[in-house]
Amino acid sequence: MSCSSKSPGVLISEVGPRDGLQAVKASMPTADKFRWIDALVAAGLREIEVGSFVPARQLPQMADVAEVVRHALTHSGLTVMALVPNLRGAEAALKAGVHKLTIPVSASAAHSLANVHRTREEMIEELRAIVRLRDEIAPQVRVETGISTAFGCTLQGLVAEDDVVWLASQCIAAGADESGLSDTTGMANPAQVRRLFKRVRAAIGDQTGAAHMHNTRGLGLANCLAAYDVGVRTFDSSLGGLGGCPHAPGASGNVVTEDLVFMFEAMGVSTGVDIEKLMAARAPLIAGLPGEPVYGMTPAAGLPKGWRQAQALARALTL
Amino acid sequence: MSCSSKSPGVLISEVGPRDGLQAVKASMPTADKFRWIDALVAAGLREIEVGSFVPARQLPQMADVAEVVRHALTHSGLTVMALVPNLRGAEAALKAGVHKLTIPVSASAAHSLANVHRTREEMIEELRAIVRLRDEIAPQVRVETGISTAFGCTLQGLVAEDDVVWLASQCIAAGADESGLSDTTGMANPAQVRRLFKRVRAAIGDQTGAAHMHNTRGLGLANCLAAYDVGVRTFDSSLGGLGGCPHAPGASGNVVTEDLVFMFEAMGVSTGVDIEKLMAARAPLIAGLPGEPVYGMTPAAGLPKGWRQAQALARALTL
Repeated sequence: MSCSSKSPGVLISEVGPRDGLQAVKASMPTADKFRWIDALVAAGLREIEVGSFVPARQLPQMADVAEVVRHALTHSGLTVMALVPNLRGAEAALKAGVHKLTIPVSASAAHSLANVHRTREEMIEELRAIVRLRDEIAPQVRVETGISTAFGCTLQGLVAEDDVVWLASQCIAAGADESGLSDTTGMANPAQVRRLFKRVRAAIGDQTGAAHMHNTRGLGLANCLAAYDVGVRTFDSSLGGLGGCPHAPGASGNVVTEDLVFMFEAMGVSTGVDIEKLMAARAPLIAGLPGEPVYGMTPAAGLPKGWRQAQALARALTL
Repeated sequence: MSCSSKSPGVLISEVGPRDGLQAVKASMPTADKFRWIDALVAAGLREIEVGSFVPARQLPQMADVAEVVRHALTHSGLTVMALVPNLRGAEAALKAGVHKLTIPVSASAAHSLANVHRTREEMIEELRAIVRLRDEIAPQVRVETGISTAFGCTLQGLVAEDDVVWLASQCIAAGADESGLSDTTGMANPAQVRRLFKRVRAAIGDQTGAAHMHNTRGLGLANCLAAYDVGVRTFDSSLGGLGGCPHAPGASGNVVTEDLVFMFEAMGVSTGVDIEKLMAARAPLIAGLPGEPVYGMTPAAGLPKGWRQAQALARALTL
């Protein structure tokens, strides 16, 4: 995306209502999902992954996804995104009216089989079928792939960088509009993030998509910074760090949206998000999932003294 | 420091026994301090700030500092460092036989008065007196200043970058061997870290010292990465994130040594530290301070699958 002084510098793609909610056991009531999404939009988020189209028996938390999509669509200007693992999910998502589909494709052969019971090549075939359907019934919808386990795999360990670049290229060749990289397992480091995003950009250019980083070992923000340094301008994160397979108390999975927005805004990189309203969006999340732990260092510490002045100065310095 | 393939890429300066222990109410028994320092040395740490020379009535946790220094000196190859706030402390530290003194000098006028009851100019005078004493009785000892509140102040808010650069230059002019920058209040961001370290390096060259970052708002590692990017090769951190004024549960103050070492080692940047032994050094810390919370994402999540292989690959790629 462009970075003129008129447009925000980065796009924060909030994945909490999908990635967060599907990782917790409890189901957030539909009305609470509405309130949470409303609060996220009020804070200035412009893209939200609102759910995933998967069989309700598999993920009961997502049983109301079509209803949630319909509600999210009432917010003009919001890009309503949903995850779909296969053609069947894509069909339901397109019928519900989403603006954007995101499809996880594993770079790790072992993870692909374990997660979607398909080889990587079979997933590319599935993607091709999804793109055909999109072209036919909803050509305006964007299709994004997220290369999962791009930085390492808890099943097979190392994932060859060549495999990641090959897979991202295959996704684009199969018709995806963009392909991002996901640190599904929290194994990425900044040097690797820079190297791999550069290689992917060399292969697929501006069709390089979002950085989806995890904070499993505390490197989430450092990895986002590294991705930003090599030109990435879209970042996935989750309010309160919900979801993303946290391993232990205090060890959040997904990058915390509040901390990510704080980092960029403090650097003078505009996110379009009002950080105070963003912190207020934690209330409906907490109300809808009583007892579920939420993370975030910036919410715990509060904004620093002189924040508005520091932010204005930082913006002036980046212009 | 040099970065040849033979020498480690960065120096991790462990500040837990000083910065950590003086921030907690309980006093760690002297024998436990010995065990903790022994474990840190066994893990490969080559510089440890073992305590501060301050009146025992002010900080009873540091009453045994001379004894701790004597014990630390039994480890050959270890740089034994102590914090001294004034000439009197410096005299005691030099008599105890430390290798290196670190002196905090506030860039914030308000913080300087509140913290050491002196103006910044008076602190420079004190530094000059310390350097004279060092030259006289222990010329081999290195004197380091840490510019505190370099990135913002909880009392006065913004701190002018010109003030930081001026103060660092004043410290070197007064005879300090090196001057680092401290994010005492957890307000730094990566863009600011890069800008300010570059400016300080332009002013004092290779006498630019350590980056002492806090993780108050989750940006600790991102800020260390930013400092590394502009040539900083010494980093302060604290095992278990102990100390550094944590604001809230889960919100650690100091950068966590375990996570910092993990980041650099994962990037292929050698720290000289064995991360497994480093994690084992948490046991004597926890035993010596029962009930005190310790932080760290890497210890919570564990090392990733294929770690040794990933580390070797990363090192090969950085050569």
